[in-house]
Amino acid sequence: MTIVIVKETWVSDGVKQRMIREAALALARKGLQRASFSEVLEAAGAPRGSLYHHFPNGKAELVLDALAAASERVTKALDATAGKPAPEVAAAFFAIWRNVLALTDFGAGCAVAAVTVAAETPAQIDSVAAIFRAWRDQLAGLLAAGGIEDKQSHSLAATLVSAAEGAVVLARAERAFAPFDLVAEALVAVVRAATQPRRARRSPA
Amino acid sequence: MTIVIVKETWVSDGVKQRMIREAALALARKGLQRASFSEVLEAAGAPRGSLYHHFPNGKAELVLDALAAASERVTKALDATAGKPAPEVAAAFFAIWRNVLALTDFGAGCAVAAVTVAAETPAQIDSVAAIFRAWRDQLAGLLAAGGIEDKQSHSLAATLVSAAEGAVVLARAERAFAPFDLVAEALVAVVRAATQPRRARRSPA
Repeated sequence: MTIVIVKETWVSDGVKQRMIREAALALARKGLQRASFSEVLEAAGAPRGSLYHHFPNGKAELVLDALAAASERVTKALDATAGKPAPEVAAAFFAIWRNVLALTDFGAGCAVAAVTVAAETPAQIDSVAAIFRAWRDQLAGLLAAGGIEDKQSHSLAATLVSAAEGAVVLARAERAFAPFDLVAEALVAVVRAATQPRRARRSPA
Repeated sequence: MTIVIVKETWVSDGVKQRMIREAALALARKGLQRASFSEVLEAAGAPRGSLYHHFPNGKAELVLDALAAASERVTKALDATAGKPAPEVAAAFFAIWRNVLALTDFGAGCAVAAVTVAAETPAQIDSVAAIFRAWRDQLAGLLAAGGIEDKQSHSLAATLVSAAEGAVVLARAERAFAPFDLVAEALVAVVRAATQPRRARRSPA
């Protein structure tokens, strides 16, 4: 009996998780208002009308869950860079976004930015603010651990998040990697330059 | 008789220009789908139903004209930096966007980015691509004239446009200048550092 319950829970979670993932992708592709939640249900293999079964507060709840999922995708990818030198952390952060562009043929960008520029509720703004802060803080910590001075780590983290977000927009507009790659290379070089002096100061002893 | 015609033309252009300006602001505030074109008409002091009088192709045409107006605002502001040292050009570019945030209490960002992430037609994508390219090219020229090496000027121009676009998104999400100012200061410093070596190489003779 226990096994059946576990299985049912798993199946239910599976559908819900797919709905959240598809919603995040729809936001990243089409923006908040063009994201079609009937298409999300269909892509997730969920029955029509099942939105409120999984999300009692409807679309508003699904959007917030999708933002959280989009955020977690980034934080987990950043987790994998822990302990690496700061330039590798920066390169990995740009690689996350380049991958989104590549996998969707420039069709998708960042769900969090898409919601920010067309937000409908204070809850959405609170959510995107918390996500950007979390990304900035996580990146700053990784950069500091990777050889950037503490104070500069926050400034560089904000710069990397902002530049990657904007470079994704430029690449989607131009349907080309060129602007994105220029920005990624320029900023990885900036991080490298900011890392070296600290190493240089440490090496003579 | 001629005077009357001239005056009528002027009045008509006045309304049309106000509609375009209000549409650009609506896009920058609310995004492509939430921008209400009845509100745009009202804000412009244009009669209900007059959209097709000024824009025979309707909303599609008004959106493209609004994007062109948003672009021109930036290119004209950049024109004013011609001949200045590269760090001042970079600072002026960030100031354009900080001003948008300040004047709208973080309510508006960039109309061009807002359309990019929720574009509905190929014509919109073509338009935003051309605008971002124009900004990049103009900035690259100004940076090169201001002391940045030609090759690096394109990379830094893409970086400034991307970072400013993203920093506007972060500031709107967080409803605070802090992330924007971190990014602006960091990148003006990068431009300053990239400017100095060229001067240094020139000065000994």
